[in-house]
Amino acid sequence: MLMRATMIYGAGDVRVETVPDPVLREPTDALVRVVRSCICGSDLWPYGSMPAGEQGRRIGHEFIGVVEDTGAEVSGLSRGDLVVAPFVWADNTCDFCREGLHTSCRHGGGWGSNGVDGGQGEAVRVPQAQGTLVKLPVAEDSALLPSLLSLSDVFPTGHHCAVTAGVGPRTTVTVIGDGAVGLSAVLAAKRLGAERIILMGRHKDRTDLGREFGATDVVAERGAEGVERVRELTGGDGTHTVLECVGLKPAIETAFGVVRAGGTVSRVGAPQYPDVPADFGVFFRNITLTGGVAPARAYIEELMPDILEGRVQPGKVFDRTVNLDQVPDGYRAMADRTALKVLIQP
Amino acid sequence: MLMRATMIYGAGDVRVETVPDPVLREPTDALVRVVRSCICGSDLWPYGSMPAGEQGRRIGHEFIGVVEDTGAEVSGLSRGDLVVAPFVWADNTCDFCREGLHTSCRHGGGWGSNGVDGGQGEAVRVPQAQGTLVKLPVAEDSALLPSLLSLSDVFPTGHHCAVTAGVGPRTTVTVIGDGAVGLSAVLAAKRLGAERIILMGRHKDRTDLGREFGATDVVAERGAEGVERVRELTGGDGTHTVLECVGLKPAIETAFGVVRAGGTVSRVGAPQYPDVPADFGVFFRNITLTGGVAPARAYIEELMPDILEGRVQPGKVFDRTVNLDQVPDGYRAMADRTALKVLIQP
Repeated sequence: MLMRATMIYGAGDVRVETVPDPVLREPTDALVRVVRSCICGSDLWPYGSMPAGEQGRRIGHEFIGVVEDTGAEVSGLSRGDLVVAPFVWADNTCDFCREGLHTSCRHGGGWGSNGVDGGQGEAVRVPQAQGTLVKLPVAEDSALLPSLLSLSDVFPTGHHCAVTAGVGPRTTVTVIGDGAVGLSAVLAAKRLGAERIILMGRHKDRTDLGREFGATDVVAERGAEGVERVRELTGGDGTHTVLECVGLKPAIETAFGVVRAGGTVSRVGAPQYPDVPADFGVFFRNITLTGGVAPARAYIEELMPDILEGRVQPGKVFDRTVNLDQVPDGYRAMADRTALKVLIQP
Repeated sequence: MLMRATMIYGAGDVRVETVPDPVLREPTDALVRVVRSCICGSDLWPYGSMPAGEQGRRIGHEFIGVVEDTGAEVSGLSRGDLVVAPFVWADNTCDFCREGLHTSCRHGGGWGSNGVDGGQGEAVRVPQAQGTLVKLPVAEDSALLPSLLSLSDVFPTGHHCAVTAGVGPRTTVTVIGDGAVGLSAVLAAKRLGAERIILMGRHKDRTDLGREFGATDVVAERGAEGVERVRELTGGDGTHTVLECVGLKPAIETAFGVVRAGGTVSRVGAPQYPDVPADFGVFFRNITLTGGVAPARAYIEELMPDILEGRVQPGKVFDRTVNLDQVPDGYRAMADRTALKVLIQP
């Protein structure tokens, strides 16, 4: 049996190809037919720089689907269940998972490599299915699907950034980056009660959505000028927390420039740099650097009710929908910044 | 009127000289006659590298003394009070001080510069005296003076390292460095209930005191070998927290090598490096970097009762006492590592 799935062969070279249908291999596996998937900002890193090669690899790590079959050791999931998968699979029982760090699960791993399917295809074999998948109490055609799909990655990633930074009531926040993660971080900070949220971004359509998500101020300037502007807005001090949602060196440097003494920089943009400033000035100001890859699984149950009950609409970050054949167009649109985040309806 | 005070003129050049007696300049000042002072590991940075010049500067930032006079706006302090001074003076009323970050006080500053005396002399003009000084309920000849003097800097610095790292019961800890700060960090971690404390240090007399302070394991190896040894001791995982008490690049690199996924590196050794590793590996493991210069003032009231009631003896880090004339010998002894920390009895 064959299905179609997205493969990446190198920078700019994404193809939808015919691959073998997944089958159950381990008793802890489930098979899931994909109902919605999407393209992540982090997919753009290989799309921008992967060396060309004969060997392609699967791609995609965010999906909602319907359970088709389960292994003998999977309980709590049945054929027909609608489920969401976090962007890393995990057993949800080891010591790291119990601590909420599913990304370091002792029996976990990523999608799209080592014989595990990617999310941007028709079906996925899900390892550690019982620990990984979370049931969704809605129908397969629910209007909530985009927001529920955001639970795979982008909303928990913004939430992780805000939580690790310690955002709460009376916290002032700077969010760096108006991509889907940055906007999700704005939404998460607002949801956690932040007093003031300054969004640094240059794309008006995106910062407009940021304001809708809860940003109180928008700073379009970058670099030293951007730092100066945030300092002006905060009486010279900077903000208690800075949510760095880009991953590039200038962004993390800006973060250290706008954080208040005693404050925290949290980063969830996969770092495209080897080190961060940590000199005597940073030391004297007692700046904390935290964040990292988000253990989305740890947050899904906590975030889902607000989506189901309509209090948050993180799915608004999706501004284009493609079918599987159009996935290469979707990558181009995100790379060209003509789309913020692309939903895939296989 | 003249007094004697320690001056530093360049690397290896510390002199005790005659300088003007301090006088009250601001209504918020107090004059304090120094009863005990000491030499800090951080004093060894200029002692090791300060360019020689004609202009010397005062040095020393830890002292206990007796109040001799107070300005008109100082209340709560009287002539004859025995007091301890934290290593940064602060008003103890601004927003940063109220948050416990006295090192960023809006009206604070350091000892030994800008017309403020250093601690290694006969007397000190104390700016913001009411906010800075803390009364000691003991006599001028109390045997507790060395431990109470440690409240100026070294004990709160170890405590700050442990607190910002989040040390508590069920926390495993690696302490990097067997200097006075490292040993104080061991004591602080033990006091906070740490389950296991691995001390990395090579000087047996010092690590022996570390064991007395609460270290459960000692690792003498350094670099990759030391990292390997700590990992062996922790089932391959590393420890939840790492207290970096050195300030050199190899020490902070070791810290990132021995920290468990999801864990925290806290640093209180003044960094002699411009940046820290923060690549994708650190990001994927969700490592937090925190710490900084310790707001000693914030911790003095909390730590003092344990000293007064004999539960901790942080003053054991002092292993040599000199008078003011012998201060240059004290610097040499600490630089040569023949002394751990030198007490000065003017």
